[in-house]
Amino acid sequence: MTNAPVPADTLIAQLQWRYATKAFDPARKIPHETWAALEQALILSPSSYGMQPYRFVIVTDPAVREKLVPASWNQRQPADCSHYVVFAARAANAEADVDRYLERVAEVRRGTVEALGGFKRMLMADVVNGPRGEIALEWATRQAYIALGNFMTAAAVIGIDTCPMEGFDPAQYDAILDLPARGLHAVVACAAGYRAGDDKYAGLPKVRMPADELLIRL
Amino acid sequence: MTNAPVPADTLIAQLQWRYATKAFDPARKIPHETWAALEQALILSPSSYGMQPYRFVIVTDPAVREKLVPASWNQRQPADCSHYVVFAARAANAEADVDRYLERVAEVRRGTVEALGGFKRMLMADVVNGPRGEIALEWATRQAYIALGNFMTAAAVIGIDTCPMEGFDPAQYDAILDLPARGLHAVVACAAGYRAGDDKYAGLPKVRMPADELLIRL
Repeated sequence: MTNAPVPADTLIAQLQWRYATKAFDPARKIPHETWAALEQALILSPSSYGMQPYRFVIVTDPAVREKLVPASWNQRQPADCSHYVVFAARAANAEADVDRYLERVAEVRRGTVEALGGFKRMLMADVVNGPRGEIALEWATRQAYIALGNFMTAAAVIGIDTCPMEGFDPAQYDAILDLPARGLHAVVACAAGYRAGDDKYAGLPKVRMPADELLIRL
Repeated sequence: MTNAPVPADTLIAQLQWRYATKAFDPARKIPHETWAALEQALILSPSSYGMQPYRFVIVTDPAVREKLVPASWNQRQPADCSHYVVFAARAANAEADVDRYLERVAEVRRGTVEALGGFKRMLMADVVNGPRGEIALEWATRQAYIALGNFMTAAAVIGIDTCPMEGFDPAQYDAILDLPARGLHAVVACAAGYRAGDDKYAGLPKVRMPADELLIRL
């Protein structure tokens, strides 16, 4: 695999360009190929043990998106953005989830599930019956937050605006999206698209703690 | 602010190139300017309300890094990588944390703390005395995981290898890094540097659930 990286100053310029977009231009949609790349970024997001204990709900139906507005403290991003992603974490880990994952490992790496017996025992002893199993939803939530961070940065790098959304009623999202039936729970969301020309937040200086306060060097 | 983004296929090629690096080349160090950009990426990471309820501990002292190895299930990444970052979440939110943040907002945006009274009341009612205050450490942990996702993607984009580290004893990290005295708790870590030429994991096909399983389209 070749490594043809981006210059560091390009990365930083894009991260400086990024901001939590309050007003999206409802008329502008992300082109198909660009959105396909962002879906790839979601799929490629790293997760603990590679287990991906979440699903990404891509909401494009305008009627569903309007329903999400009152469930989002009446913020308009779910309806006005181009693509709205709800990060849905798995509420609990079952042996079947481990088996499905190992089946996929065997498929992709051209091995057998039988050869992965040691790995299965390790996973069962941690994510099902062990420490991570005890906090399964929270563990899955953290992995979803990695995906959120990855998604926002990936989008910024290719010039797509986003707004992370923690301000919503998870129970209402669950009901609207019918997530509990799938063993999932809405934990965070992200709007993606293009900033409106008049979003006053776009021009505000970015507030960050000074480096000597935020970084501890040891 | 201009937007001179990266082509989507360059982004995806770099995310495909990324993997959880098990063996780092201990002889290769990230150049100063490149590391400075990655610190900027950490600083620019988005967080809930912009509060950054965490600190990034950059461990470069070889003696400290060797101490982290036995606390990391004897994995060598903390010692062998170029730069090791421990993500330390704030254990609780106090009014002083809100005040420090508002002071910084006023400083950066050339306003006054007095003018931010409404924002202060909202923050106090949520992150100190409200729902997010009740789960303060977990809320801060999730924000730290956004930063982790942002950091790994930023590094991949500029051609730097990383390995996320959940496999360590948080209490031992806290003790070695003296975090509780600062009101912090080690929640996750990330090694950064360059893959060793013989890391067999570098060549393995990436395992991800199929798109039609991982993505739910509504």
